[in-house]
Amino acid sequence: MPNPTAAMIVIGDEILSGRTRDSNMHFLAGELSNRGIDLREVRVVPDVHDAIVAAVNGLRGRFDHVFTSGGIGPTHDDITADAVAAAFGLGLDVRDDARAILAAHYAKTGSELNAARLRMARIPAGATLIENPISSAPGFSLENVHVMAGVPNVFQAMVASLLPRISGGAPLLTQSLRIPRGEGEIAGPLAELASAFPTLSIGSYPFISNGAHGATIVIRGTEAADVDAAMVRLAALFPEALA
Amino acid sequence: MPNPTAAMIVIGDEILSGRTRDSNMHFLAGELSNRGIDLREVRVVPDVHDAIVAAVNGLRGRFDHVFTSGGIGPTHDDITADAVAAAFGLGLDVRDDARAILAAHYAKTGSELNAARLRMARIPAGATLIENPISSAPGFSLENVHVMAGVPNVFQAMVASLLPRISGGAPLLTQSLRIPRGEGEIAGPLAELASAFPTLSIGSYPFISNGAHGATIVIRGTEAADVDAAMVRLAALFPEALA
Repeated sequence: MPNPTAAMIVIGDEILSGRTRDSNMHFLAGELSNRGIDLREVRVVPDVHDAIVAAVNGLRGRFDHVFTSGGIGPTHDDITADAVAAAFGLGLDVRDDARAILAAHYAKTGSELNAARLRMARIPAGATLIENPISSAPGFSLENVHVMAGVPNVFQAMVASLLPRISGGAPLLTQSLRIPRGEGEIAGPLAELASAFPTLSIGSYPFISNGAHGATIVIRGTEAADVDAAMVRLAALFPEALA
Repeated sequence: MPNPTAAMIVIGDEILSGRTRDSNMHFLAGELSNRGIDLREVRVVPDVHDAIVAAVNGLRGRFDHVFTSGGIGPTHDDITADAVAAAFGLGLDVRDDARAILAAHYAKTGSELNAARLRMARIPAGATLIENPISSAPGFSLENVHVMAGVPNVFQAMVASLLPRISGGAPLLTQSLRIPRGEGEIAGPLAELASAFPTLSIGSYPFISNGAHGATIVIRGTEAADVDAAMVRLAALFPEALA
């Protein structure tokens, strides 16, 4: 059975303006690889209602899962929940279960559950909450779209809450070999190797070390025997490979 | 006149698998902000022909410029040039001007300009070369699509070669203020401020410092007077703001 597929939507003006360097994409990519879920596309969009709606509707039908990060806090620029609900043709209102979580949190911290904070309890009907052990305000899964926070430690905690209830596949196995020759010299035999193993992804990533060109060859696949066989062939092709 | 708009396509299995953390998006975002070009969307796609074609054709009609990174080296997984040409309904072949650049480079380094390296001289007819002062193999601009390398120092050098011939707009001006109060407490007045300055982007980014919640408010716009006026109003709203 092929692995489940996924896309991600990173939401935030601060990424597109260059102010903030996103880290959630790299984190999620690694977590999904480990669980055998193939991340096939990522889109970064601004805090603009129509852009979020278009990304959600452009991706949710094409992939098994869509993960979003960003835009679910209490301020005016936090519009992701509204946009995701709109993409499904739904409205959203304060939901009792989410309100109870926030009320307990703010009672504990001695802060007021005011109108702005209550915005974070607006969850579409039918959505499943995603637990937030860091700052309590929950994310949610609406069908196959999983809505999470943008602050990296909260995003990571929500991913940890969410992934155990998503079915994975065969984890992506990776082996690599560093070859101390320029890509232009190894490209021919490498292409033949790739043709011989069509189910594997064989990537070449150039580097320069002590002024000399080299390439790291990365072989990825879900069948350990195939990955091993390709690695043996690769090592035989390039006996000068670095350990 | 509104600023020119842009999208970016990051191409590479290694980003989506979590092996490599992309840095080209953040670099380009900053360069474009400085030049007054609004980066509106980024897509990350795998080394798959149809995925690259779909991204190019999904974006090139919607934005003034599309920048790509990755997939233009000599190995079998470098398929970006073919896919971009295909997106325009073009083929591509070795072009004399690109071949001359590579021939001069490899003559100097004493390497052979073999078939794999010659692949990097395959440039669509009508495209303008983008100079690569690092490793010589050029990128190219085909109409409004600018095709560049994925290796970060080469990407950065190509961006430096390219941007002087792209018209910019009013640079995005940014001012920010750190407010030592949680987002939930400042969200109300902040929303009013955002409504009063509809041409500005006013973002709120929470932080925790010494265990206390705070938010950095970032005001962005192309009109210095507006940004200044909004900052004065923001500082008056929150006199406890940190310098």
